[in-house]
Formats: sequence, structure tokens, C-alpha cells
Amino acid sequence: KRARELGIHIGVLPTGKWNAITDVPGVKVGQTTLVKGDNIRTGVTAILPHGGNIFQQKVPAAVFVGNGFGKLAGTTQVTELGNLETPVVLTNTLNVATAMDAVIEYTLQQKGNEKIQSVNAVVGETNDGWLNEIRNRPVHKEDVLQAIQSAQTGPVTEGCVGAGTGTVCFGYKGGIGTASRKLPQNLGGYTVGVLVQTNFGGVLEINGAPVGQELGKYDFSDVLNNPVDGSCMIVVATDAPLDSRNLQRLAKRAFMGLAKTGGIASNGSGDYVVAFSSADAVRIPYEADKPVMELPALHNEFVTPLFMAVIEAAEEAIVNSLFAATTTKGKEGHTVEAIPREKVIAILKKYNRIR
Amino acid sequence: KRARELGIHIGVLPTGKWNAITDVPGVKVGQTTLVKGDNIRTGVTAILPHGGNIFQQKVPAAVFVGNGFGKLAGTTQVTELGNLETPVVLTNTLNVATAMDAVIEYTLQQKGNEKIQSVNAVVGETNDGWLNEIRNRPVHKEDVLQAIQSAQTGPVTEGCVGAGTGTVCFGYKGGIGTASRKLPQNLGGYTVGVLVQTNFGGVLEINGAPVGQELGKYDFSDVLNNPVDGSCMIVVATDAPLDSRNLQRLAKRAFMGLAKTGGIASNGSGDYVVAFSSADAVRIPYEADKPVMELPALHNEFVTPLFMAVIEAAEEAIVNSLFAATTTKGKEGHTVEAIPREKVIAILKKYNRIR
Amino acid sequence: KRARELGIHIGVLPTGKWNAITDVPGVKVGQTTLVKGDNIRTGVTAILPHGGNIFQQKVPAAVFVGNGFGKLAGTTQVTELGNLETPVVLTNTLNVATAMDAVIEYTLQQKGNEKIQSVNAVVGETNDGWLNEIRNRPVHKEDVLQAIQSAQTGPVTEGCVGAGTGTVCFGYKGGIGTASRKLPQNLGGYTVGVLVQTNFGGVLEINGAPVGQELGKYDFSDVLNNPVDGSCMIVVATDAPLDSRNLQRLAKRAFMGLAKTGGIASNGSGDYVVAFSSADAVRIPYEADKPVMELPALHNEFVTPLFMAVIEAAEEAIVNSLFAATTTKGKEGHTVEAIPREKVIAILKKYNRIR
Amino acid sequence: KRARELGIHIGVLPTGKWNAITDVPGVKVGQTTLVKGDNIRTGVTAILPHGGNIFQQKVPAAVFVGNGFGKLAGTTQVTELGNLETPVVLTNTLNVATAMDAVIEYTLQQKGNEKIQSVNAVVGETNDGWLNEIRNRPVHKEDVLQAIQSAQTGPVTEGCVGAGTGTVCFGYKGGIGTASRKLPQNLGGYTVGVLVQTNFGGVLEINGAPVGQELGKYDFSDVLNNPVDGSCMIVVATDAPLDSRNLQRLAKRAFMGLAKTGGIASNGSGDYVVAFSSADAVRIPYEADKPVMELPALHNEFVTPLFMAVIEAAEEAIVNSLFAATTTKGKEGHTVEAIPREKVIAILKKYNRIR
Repeated sequence: KRARELGIHIGVLPTGKWNAITDVPGVKVGQTTLVKGDNIRTGVTAILPHGGNIFQQKVPAAVFVGNGFGKLAGTTQVTELGNLETPVVLTNTLNVATAMDAVIEYTLQQKGNEKIQSVNAVVGETNDGWLNEIRNRPVHKEDVLQAIQSAQTGPVTEGCVGAGTGTVCFGYKGGIGTASRKLPQNLGGYTVGVLVQTNFGGVLEINGAPVGQELGKYDFSDVLNNPVDGSCMIVVATDAPLDSRNLQRLAKRAFMGLAKTGGIASNGSGDYVVAFSSADAVRIPYEADKPVMELPALHNEFVTPLFMAVIEAAEEAIVNSLFAATTTKGKEGHTVEAIPREKVIAILKKYNRIR
Repeated sequence: KRARELGIHIGVLPTGKWNAITDVPGVKVGQTTLVKGDNIRTGVTAILPHGGNIFQQKVPAAVFVGNGFGKLAGTTQVTELGNLETPVVLTNTLNVATAMDAVIEYTLQQKGNEKIQSVNAVVGETNDGWLNEIRNRPVHKEDVLQAIQSAQTGPVTEGCVGAGTGTVCFGYKGGIGTASRKLPQNLGGYTVGVLVQTNFGGVLEINGAPVGQELGKYDFSDVLNNPVDGSCMIVVATDAPLDSRNLQRLAKRAFMGLAKTGGIASNGSGDYVVAFSSADAVRIPYEADKPVMELPALHNEFVTPLFMAVIEAAEEAIVNSLFAATTTKGKEGHTVEAIPREKVIAILKKYNRIR
Repeated sequence: KRARELGIHIGVLPTGKWNAITDVPGVKVGQTTLVKGDNIRTGVTAILPHGGNIFQQKVPAAVFVGNGFGKLAGTTQVTELGNLETPVVLTNTLNVATAMDAVIEYTLQQKGNEKIQSVNAVVGETNDGWLNEIRNRPVHKEDVLQAIQSAQTGPVTEGCVGAGTGTVCFGYKGGIGTASRKLPQNLGGYTVGVLVQTNFGGVLEINGAPVGQELGKYDFSDVLNNPVDGSCMIVVATDAPLDSRNLQRLAKRAFMGLAKTGGIASNGSGDYVVAFSSADAVRIPYEADKPVMELPALHNEFVTPLFMAVIEAAEEAIVNSLFAATTTKGKEGHTVEAIPREKVIAILKKYNRIR
Repeated sequence: KRARELGIHIGVLPTGKWNAITDVPGVKVGQTTLVKGDNIRTGVTAILPHGGNIFQQKVPAAVFVGNGFGKLAGTTQVTELGNLETPVVLTNTLNVATAMDAVIEYTLQQKGNEKIQSVNAVVGETNDGWLNEIRNRPVHKEDVLQAIQSAQTGPVTEGCVGAGTGTVCFGYKGGIGTASRKLPQNLGGYTVGVLVQTNFGGVLEINGAPVGQELGKYDFSDVLNNPVDGSCMIVVATDAPLDSRNLQRLAKRAFMGLAKTGGIASNGSGDYVVAFSSADAVRIPYEADKPVMELPALHNEFVTPLFMAVIEAAEEAIVNSLFAATTTKGKEGHTVEAIPREKVIAILKKYNRIR
């Protein structure tokens, strides 16, 4: 069961239909999960801004760097040009190159792209090396292509799946999570969706309840042990007509949602947010038929509800990743427990944060 | 009573002696409160990194822009040179120039500065125009000088004082707040202090309890009314030997503390963090006696406990500002209520977030 | 005579009518020159993006920081919101606060602005303290208002005027300079205008000729003497429909023009570029009548000619400032010579860089 | 012959022994050139900050983005942590992933790195797709490893070699170039070295002479033809004890050197600078033996001569790349001519810019 089904209601805004990034029209998600033998626990998660040829119909986009100890590929071009021209792919730290290679191949081979010679692959990662034999770099190009090609709308599988197969979050098994918010019509009626790959630490709070403290498991709780650094990749989609500047602002607010779960963006964490608008009207054609485009753009004064929405959705997506993940045994016999659901629910009851 | 005295314990780390920014050795705070007639409700708060000549003995510093709808003066030089050469002064939006003028005069007239011709005054602000006749620009140079010259170590007055005299936070009276954390020796033993000028909105949470929702008062709760945008200025001090790069990272984490109070960094909010190290050994002399300095610098691997500390301290400083502020009547008969302490305490009890 | 009239043709693109920033439709420039007694040599230069109420009809804008040892006010808000809501005012380093105060007053008092409570004054500066008794802060609010109110279209006075009255450039008298480029119709037909306040050093080159070396006067030519650090403020206007992202790119290219004059952006130099689009169709209303604006935006693929234009115009504007400035005696008997025109022309002939 | 041997003296500072990036103590360069059949014209250039284990002994580093239309991998981590932990590898646009993969493998397999699970590979690129069948992605992991493993000190081969094998610059054959400057002792005695991969356009100037105009070949000279966009990767090394903040400033000045060659940083150009300090005393150990390091750091006041040095060296490195490159025929019969040396020398004589 997802957090909301358990009675955990984060924030004040309503969710979209699936409470997933795929509530944003056009957005698709595909995942490849690699569980092999005793020591391969990794995978790939691909987020497609729309179902067409993304290179030919780019989407406005931006990146926010929460903590740059990470290998997110493609950032400078997204920032310079204000757009995204490939799927966003998530995987493990040492397979970023593999995923880039696959994204480039995917793009070169799409119909209509026969002559293009430059592709800015956007690939994020977190380090799943506690459970996964990461030094073997077990993800192959085909795994990435499979994730892209299988992407679909509708509900998104969460937990130990795709790029979240081997991740660890607040000392428990993390993974993929998603959530969305849909603004009321008088606030614009737009949808904001978030997908996260959770692999970070801090002092876990769920809906404001001090879960990490109650469980006695949080960073520096035993100062003889260094916390295992980790990362969080966050992907944000919206159908609001935002330009790259306002998408960058939206991305920054997703990081605020991470803060609300007790994340601390530790030195070793690669915390990044990639945000894009999938609105049809703001697509940027690769080849302009005329120099001046006419683009709708939300006036600055109207972006605040979107900020609130993304904070809520990011927080809930992270919590969803924890509830969906299951105890996982991997490399060198390492085992990472799922959050103890019963105990957590009891804690949430103690703090009156579950219905 | 401050939050902690009421039984509200935010975070897991211990506070410094005063639970104030002044716990960081050398740091001084001075304030001028201007309450005149029916419509002047404003003031000045000055934070001095150390008691000496700051221009001659600069301190490493950095700025993080949470949301740049604000007039913080001096940012680009702090970023370029990595240091701060004046007190940090906070006031209202339309008196930034007044405060700059005063900081420049203060610096020019300090002994030893007879020949300097350039001063980078760092002045922050939030907009207190709901209670204060801000268009009159009621702060004068003398008010600023008085704040600087009266700065002292020890406890810091919070609430409706100095630059917090006329501010509004989550729909209640905001103001000045402060808090600190002192790391255990095995985590470095450093102190991190925060001072805030709170004047922003969102959905108030105190120690994770949904206070804003319980009180029915939060942004977009009545969508016919736009939320009053506001701002939060945050000043962070530490005695850890951090360079400007790591101070910038520390500053970013203070913004995470703001997120935990339910702040949303709305479009119109000027949310900034200025962070500096007051450690003696990292002072940067105006006139170098030799080209190469030998500077202690905390290795990246050891900054994470400071990150956790500043998140906690920023959250607590904001909460302190709310508990210290009192109902204030100002311009055009506008009244802003203090947070309803009894109700809030009842809510915190309901959510088991007060001892 | 201006550089071009002397036969110095910089670049390959044609100029606008006045070869001035005022070639960009709507842009106005006003200046106040303060020459008093033996030691006041300073002033104010104001650039208005258009002749209307700028606060009510903001213009897209961006800032590029070449070297941030400077006090440019208003940068973070321009960057965050992507627009400019006041004139850009230039003055001396220690009068930035004075100019901010004046810009705020000007804006508060404009018809239609009776209720506004927040103004982001954009004020740049360079340090004229060699010729000007800068510590006296001789510019007054009235001087700034006069510059704004007297702004007009048409030719712009260059040299020892306004904010350039007391500046020094490459060891010679600097000042205000301006230039423009007008793209051919097949490249868009847009105009780019530049105005500079020159006060920096390096190894002077004029149209590629090594003037500084020939004159034996350049930074570190006598390593016993430190070069006097200085700054360059650059303002760029265009009527091309650029958003703030592309304006930031345009601003960065203006800095490339500075490089071509032999500027080195020394440690102590405050080198900034403020760029805006004055195109009617991209104005951003203070109060939106509807949430979504329809804005024309030049496709990325078509901005390169503008880049070339601004590089040329910035280089020429700097050279113009040198040719227009005259030998000036100021504070403490300091005298700064104008560039030796005859010698320079001879050098340009030697290098075949003058017609 | 290199530019200087031909009598072209750029700037005022003396060069290092080899006039190459390898004049900076410890720096090594290795290259793999791939010329196969009619259509493969590409390669790899690797720059090693020092001869030891770079991951274990990281070097302070920074990145400046001149124009971010490029795929430079590793930027955010360099910026966040202020250091570089791998060789810097340059190749073609569509083989960045290949090079990352190789750099990761190289690092994982180095002695002492048996347990590391995270590597931030820094890989830059330009697009050689006019001469090279780039869509085939002809670079293989072995080619990259060969470049790294063959790296050495001493003279560096320039022109159509390594990552410069297939590049085009100002419409002529570009390639790899390098240069250095050695400051006099009274300015610190430090060395600054630059290596470039030239593949960009604009209006070529050599030592200030308008070569592009004289040859009638420059961007927009025939406005019916769009200029071929290109890129320039610049790597800067120094033995001055600079921290990442000052290295970022140094990197920005290298971009000024590009401007002096007539480069315009066109929309489609990926212009980046990676700068690092190879000074022994500023190495950052992967595993700190104690939390606080004592680091030498050049005081801001003493960096300006380094700025001047890098501007000169970058300009000269670009010019060297042009003089060293030879006419190349490649993909689809495309031929790119070397700059016409005799004509260029004649032009330089006409403008008195060659001895």
C-alpha cells in the first residue's frame, strides 16, 4: 500500500488521478530491473516528457543542483539552451556512461533523426554499491533501451524497481517513488508530478513525525559510524507553460520537499532535480520554421501554487518509495531492511499523523 | 518563553549556551527598533562576525539565494572574493540604501580605514509594508549606526525587535529569531548559529505538527485571497574553518530548515542566506603581508554534521521568532496577531510534539 | 572625433544611426556631471529601457558578472524574475546607496505607482577615487534624479561626463562610451546598443593594434608598481525579442568585447554587464490581467548574429570612451592624461588599423 | 612551425620552456589519433594533472561555462567539491560516454582504488562531424585508455591529432594547440599552461590582425549560409596554489583569450574551460587522515598576473592549433583546408603583427 492508502496525507493539495508523475499529460515511465545472482541489484528508470520525438520537439527544462556530488550528465546544455531533448534516464553511478550511450543510440535511430550529430543525453544516478556489485557495471545498453521503449502512461511501479532496485534511504531500503498534485482550477488547474530515486540519509520524518528518532536510526546517532552517504535524484514534470527560468525555480522547491523528509543533503549526496514542462504549446522545434516563436508563459505572479504543489509531491514521492520498497539482500551478504511498516504506523499514530 | 523552554525540541543536536547566533565566538548582534506613532513599525538588526575591524580582517563568506525577489546588497562581491568585509545589516525593503550608506560610513570612519575607497556593504531586507509606512523610508543612518555600535555578545532579543519589528510570518506576527547547535567533540565540536528575520508564508509546521492546517490559516486556504508574499533573511555563523565554497553549501542547508517550517519560498519572497566563518585562523587580511596564506580548511568529508546543525538551527530560529513576537497594530489600522500560543501548544500536544 | 570618424572600423557589422545605445528604439540616456573645486570629479549616467513607466511595464533583463569585485545593486532580483523595473543608473562606488535611494524615490513618485512598496533599483558603479574625493560621497539624490529626468534619445555625450567623469582606463582618462550595431534584415534586422563606463586596466589594444605595448604603459609593465585596479560597467540594449536566458548569453558576449580591448578583468575590477530587451512585445506588466502571457521569443538558433553584434559594439564603445575623454586634473593634484591621440593614430597607422 | 617560431609574439609575458601545458610541473598529455578509411577522423586527448593516483590525490579545480551547448561530463561535482579526481579527457561529441567509461575503468583499476565505487569522470568534447563519421561513434575504450596511459611531459603534438583530428576552426582545419606563460619571480614565478581543442567560428584575428576579414571567410560573411557552429574545449593548468574559487576566475579569463582570436561563442558552440592547480601542497587526499587540512592559498590580491597569463596562453594555444593543423579530407569527401600559411603571414606582415 502507498502512503496515502495507509492514511498518510501529506500537504493540503489534491493529487492527480494516479498520484504519479504520469498524471502530467504525455509523460511516460519505463523501468528495467536487474536482479541477478547474489550481487546484482540495480536497474534503469526512464522518464519521457512526451510520446513523440523529443529531439525534434524539445521541452523547456531546468536543473537544480541540491548537492553536486553526483554525475548527472547533460546539465550544462539544459541550462544554457533551456531545454531537454532526450528522455531523462536514471541508473547507478558507474553506469551513467552506459545509459548515455543508449540514449544517444535511441535518439540517433529515431525516425526523423537520421542526420543529427549531437545529442545531449540527460542521465542521473545514485550509488547502489552497498547492495549492488557496482564496480562490475552490470547495466547494459539493452537494459536502458528496454526501459525507454517500454515506457508508458498510467500507474508507476514503486520501490525496488528500475534505478531504485539497490538503493538505501535513511538506513532502510529505498527505491523509486512518485506522487503528483493537481491544482484547483482557480489556481490554474495544472498538474505537477514528481518521480524520485531515493538513496540518501538524514533523520527520517514522515509527515512531520520523527520516525528516525523513534526508531533510533539516523545520521550521527552513533557517531562512531559514519553515515553512508547517498543521493536523491528527483524528476519534476508539469503541464504548466513555464519557461526554463521558472522551471529552475520549481526544481529548487522540489529540494524543499526532500528537506521535509529529514534529508540533509550530506557531503556525499548527489541531490539533483530535473524539471520540465510537457505542455504542447511550449515545445521547441529542433528546426525552427521561423526565427520568432510565440510562446505562452505563466506570469511570475502565478507560479506560487506550483511551488507548493511540487514541495508536497516530492515529499510524498520519497515516502512512497520507502513504503513500496522491500527488504533486499545483495552484494557480500549485505541486507537492507524495508522500513518496519507496523512500527512506523505505530509511530505515526503516536504523533497523530495517520488517519 | 522560547520554543525550547516550552518543551519544543527541534532536531537531535544540542544547542549552544544561549541557543543563539552569538554562541559562535566573536559574533555580536545589535538592534534598533523603530515604533513611532500609528504607522512606523520597523528597525535594524546588525550581525558582526567579530569585534575587530572587519574590513581589515575579512571573514570567509558566501550567499545562497533561495528566492531572489529581494534587494540583498553586496552579493556579487561576497561570491567573487569569498569574503565579507562589513557587518551584515537587516532592515526593511525600501531602506536598504540607507543601511548601505550607514555601513559605508561606519567602515570609512573606523580607525585604520582612513584610506580605503571601496566598501562592500552587505544589507538584507524583508518587506514590512503591511504594518509599517514603508514608503516613508523611516530608517535613518543613525538608526543603523546605533544598531552596529550597540552590538554585543550574549542573548539576543527576539520577536518584534530590530528588523523584525513589522514583519509577518505565516499570517502571524513574525520577527527576529535565533538558535544554535554545538556539535559533539567527535564531530568537530564546532558551533553553528542562525539568526532570521521572518516575513514569509506557506503552511506552518512546528516541529512537524501541522499548525497552519489546524488553525485553518495557510497560503491558498482561501483561494480568493492571494497570499501576502514575504521574505526570509537568514544569517549563519560558524567557528568551523570553512572556505567560501563550503560556506555556500552550509547556507543552502539553512534554506532546508526554512522548508521544514512549511515555508514555500513563494514567488514574491526574498529568501537569502548569508553564511560566514568567524574562526580566527581563516581571517583574510585586507593587506596581505605575503602572497600565500596558510589556511586551515575542513575537508569535505567532515562538513555533514555542520549541515545537520544548520538545518536544525534555522528551523528553530524561525519558530523562536514566532513565539517571541507579539500582536502588533500598525499602518492604516492593520493588526497582525501573534501566533495563538495556547492553541498552538494544544496543537503540539495533539501531535505529541511538545514535552 | 569618435573612433569611427577617425577611420577606425571595428568589426564587420554596420552601426545604427547614432552608433549609440539610443539606436535601440525607446532607450534614453541622461547624465549629470559633477566637477566641483579641485577634487570632485564624478557623476551619474542613467539608462532608461523605455520612455514609459518601467515599473509597470518591466523589461526582460539579465546580468552577467565578469568579475564581481563591485557593488552592482539589484542583481539577484533581475536574475530570479528575469526582468528590470527601474532605469539602470551608474555612478561611483561609494554613492551606490545614494543612487538607489533616488531610483526608489523616482519610482515611488511616478504616476500609477502610488501603492507600490517594493522597488528593485539597479545601480552599477566603478571607483573614481583617484581623481574624485570619493570618500566625501559627493553625489546627491538630486543629481541622480536629474540624470533620470533629463534622459533622452539621440546622440549620447561620451568621455568625461556623467558616471565617467572621474574614471581611468588603461592608465589614460576613461569615461562614458557607446556604440551600436544593426543587423541586416536577413539576420533579423535587430539593433544592439552598448554603453560603457570605463575604468579598468590591462594591455590596451585598439582594433587589434598593440597600443599599450607601443606606449609602454600597461599592467605589470613596471612590476614594482601594482596596477590600479578598476572596473567596467557595461549596459546592453536590444530590440530583439529575447527572454532573460538569452539576454544573459548576450551579456556574456559583451564581456568578450572588453577582452578584445586588452582588458584582463583584474582581481579588483568590478566588471558587470546588464542586458535588457526594449521590444514592446516582451514587456512584462506589473499586474497581469491574465495568468498566461503570449510572448515572442527568438529561437536559440537565431541569436548568434546578436552575439557578434554585441561583441563589436562593446569593443567600440570602450574605444569611444577613450577617444572622447580629455585630460583631467582632480583630487590631490592627480592628473590623468587623455590617450595621446596623435601617437595613437600613428600607432594605428603603423599597424594598418586605421583608414 | 609554431606561431612564435614564425615570429608571432602574442602578449607581453614570457613562455615556459615548451610553451605548452606540460610546462606546469607534473602535467602530462597523451593522445590517440584515429584516422581510418575515408571517414574516420577523430581521437582522444588526455590531460593528467599529475603522475600519481589522481583519485587518491585530488587537485583543486573549477569549470567555467562559456557557452553550454556541449556535453562536458563531470561539471557539477567539480563545482560542488572543488576538485578533480580523474584525468581530463577530450574527444568527439558522441563518444563522451565511451570516454567516461574508460576513465572509470582506468580509475577503478588503479592500484589503491580497489574499493572505490564512485568516480567523477571529466570528459569534454567538440563536434567533429563534418570530417568524421561521428554517428558511428568510432572511439573505443581502448583508444581512451591508450591516450591516458601514454601521457607524458615535454612537448605536446599539436594540430590534427587526438581530439583535434577532425575539428574545424574559423572555417579552416583546427585541432589541438597549447601554450604557456611563466610569470617573473616578482609576480610569483608561477606557470600557467593551456591546451585547446579548437572547433569554433567567428571572425578570425591573429595577434590582432583581421585575418578572417582579409581572407573573406568569417561568420555571416555570406548570410545565405549559416555558419557551422562549433566548440572550444580549453584546459588550464597552473602550479600556483589556487583554491577552486580562484581557479574558476582563472578559467573565465581563458575564455577572454578565445574572444581575442575572434571567437564569438555562437549559439551552437560548447565552450568550456576546466582549470586545475597541480601544486603539490594543495592536493586533497581522498581519505583525510585528519579533518582539518592546512592549505596554502594565494591571496586574491595576487591573482591578476595569472589572469593576464592565461588570457595570453589561451589566445596563443588557439593560434598554435591553426598553424599546426593540415588540410584534411574526410567523411563524404569533405575537405577542410589548413589556414593558408603564406597568405596569413602576408596578412600579418601587412598589419605588422609578425616579426
